[in-house]
Amino acid sequence: MDGFVFSTDVRVRFAETDAQGIAHHANYLIWFELTRVAYLAEFAGGYNLLREQGIEATVVEAHVRYLVPARFDDVIRVWARCHDVRGARFRYDYVLERADDGTRIADGWTSHACVDARTLRPTRVPAWLIEAIAKAEAPAQEQAAARSSSSASS
Amino acid sequence: MDGFVFSTDVRVRFAETDAQGIAHHANYLIWFELTRVAYLAEFAGGYNLLREQGIEATVVEAHVRYLVPARFDDVIRVWARCHDVRGARFRYDYVLERADDGTRIADGWTSHACVDARTLRPTRVPAWLIEAIAKAEAPAQEQAAARSSSSASS
Amino acid sequence: MDGFVFSTDVRVRFAETDAQGIAHHANYLIWFELTRVAYLAEFAGGYNLLREQGIEATVVEAHVRYLVPARFDDVIRVWARCHDVRGARFRYDYVLERADDGTRIADGWTSHACVDARTLRPTRVPAWLIEAIAKAEAPAQEQAAARSSSSASS
Amino acid sequence: MDGFVFSTDVRVRFAETDAQGIAHHANYLIWFELTRVAYLAEFAGGYNLLREQGIEATVVEAHVRYLVPARFDDVIRVWARCHDVRGARFRYDYVLERADDGTRIADGWTSHACVDARTLRPTRVPAWLIEAIAKAEAPAQEQAAARSSSSASS
Repeated sequence: MDGFVFSTDVRVRFAETDAQGIAHHANYLIWFELTRVAYLAEFAGGYNLLREQGIEATVVEAHVRYLVPARFDDVIRVWARCHDVRGARFRYDYVLERADDGTRIADGWTSHACVDARTLRPTRVPAWLIEAIAKAEAPAQEQAAARSSSSASS
Repeated sequence: MDGFVFSTDVRVRFAETDAQGIAHHANYLIWFELTRVAYLAEFAGGYNLLREQGIEATVVEAHVRYLVPARFDDVIRVWARCHDVRGARFRYDYVLERADDGTRIADGWTSHACVDARTLRPTRVPAWLIEAIAKAEAPAQEQAAARSSSSASS
Repeated sequence: MDGFVFSTDVRVRFAETDAQGIAHHANYLIWFELTRVAYLAEFAGGYNLLREQGIEATVVEAHVRYLVPARFDDVIRVWARCHDVRGARFRYDYVLERADDGTRIADGWTSHACVDARTLRPTRVPAWLIEAIAKAEAPAQEQAAARSSSSASS
Repeated sequence: MDGFVFSTDVRVRFAETDAQGIAHHANYLIWFELTRVAYLAEFAGGYNLLREQGIEATVVEAHVRYLVPARFDDVIRVWARCHDVRGARFRYDYVLERADDGTRIADGWTSHACVDARTLRPTRVPAWLIEAIAKAEAPAQEQAAARSSSSASS
């Protein structure tokens, strides 16, 4: 997926379907979340590392576009990228594809704030996490820069 | 419902249905739980009163018999009674009926233990809660005693 | 709530909380949905009336802003209004308040399309539903018109 | 796991936790279900094969014993075995372990009935499924027989 360096796969559970015979739309937010958890596990020592430092990441805003229904037992590839890390805030974009044929079934984004786990007051994204995200996303950034310079020169 | 003094109604949410067109069976445990919460609100000051005293009630065991499917938008009447309060333990029985025609759709039970919220070690059910439950269930007990004495005399 | 004629109350279930001690953010989409169901029950004969005519309403897009956490046992008042009914599409706006003190805890919107239940192809919103929505929302429209004319004249 | 030939791993999602900081107990029924789906995928062509033949498997009864809490991000190994296939009925047993240290965190069972997807009337478990289950479970049966004969001879 262009612009994304990370994805995780999730298989649609029977419990996630509804009487329309498709995955219920609220589950997409749960799939976004487990993808963020997998992302942090891959690049930044896991979400629990954040929690152990007394920091929780809260969800500030969420947006989903549903393009094609997902069905029971479909394997969904959830692409995610993290960006716009500023102060206490950061943001994830997502693209969801059916793993077997690459059909885009949904996309969306979520924005987040780090908060102190006790006071629930906003707290800066820790420096180590900012670095981990920057390092993780660097390949996608370089691709984008290369594309932009190549189109500029042509 | 014979032997039960308490019920609460729950309307089947669309999100609770599955691709079989019926309420997914895991939701029954959630309906049991919200009925316990309503029961404690009615008779014992609410579940939060327990939590404010540093006590959590954990689920030790759960059992459900599914008799007739529940469908989207059905109103389910969940009857509950609490009994067998001993040491840290107590138990709830449930009968679920469709509210509009009284069809029994499921029954079940759950057993619970009070634990210290910090240590998660078992702790005795507080005396005030034992009393509140005994008082709440007294009418059903008396009914049962009356039935038993009337059948003995006949 | 200014501009809204309909609301329904939902009590936060224990099962809806997460390890942050607050209602998990995915549940807001479920609360939106049950509010749409209650809205249709109030004004348009219920969602099942639509389904009986072979029409399903799908979710096309969803957006939530989380302002203040909701907690276990909080009663949330979900205000909803339906508008922008055009062709197969319609849209709902939501405002969520804590019922006891009126604190706004979230807002959001969802857009929808009517589809043929068999083919899943888009189908026009039925005329009776358009009328029912127009009639339901008329008081809010009139309020808005009155406000706008009164501010114009002042 | 003695007596079990199949297991699948499930990672506890943040959305599955509750305000006690542990996995909410209703999710265990969902983990049981996805394990049955994985079992059928491994041994019998997948649950969708059953559905394509117009057969649904319904849940008749469910039982869970909760021994040790599961926490966010724990990997749970769900062992399952299918047995007592008779007429329309069959049954699964489950043992849940924490994958990293083998601690048993829960066990349980579910009983099921095959039904005609249209009429929802009970229908015999298809012969091919009975055979697939018998073949899958044969190693565990043979182990049990070997143990029993060895203890008989000693």
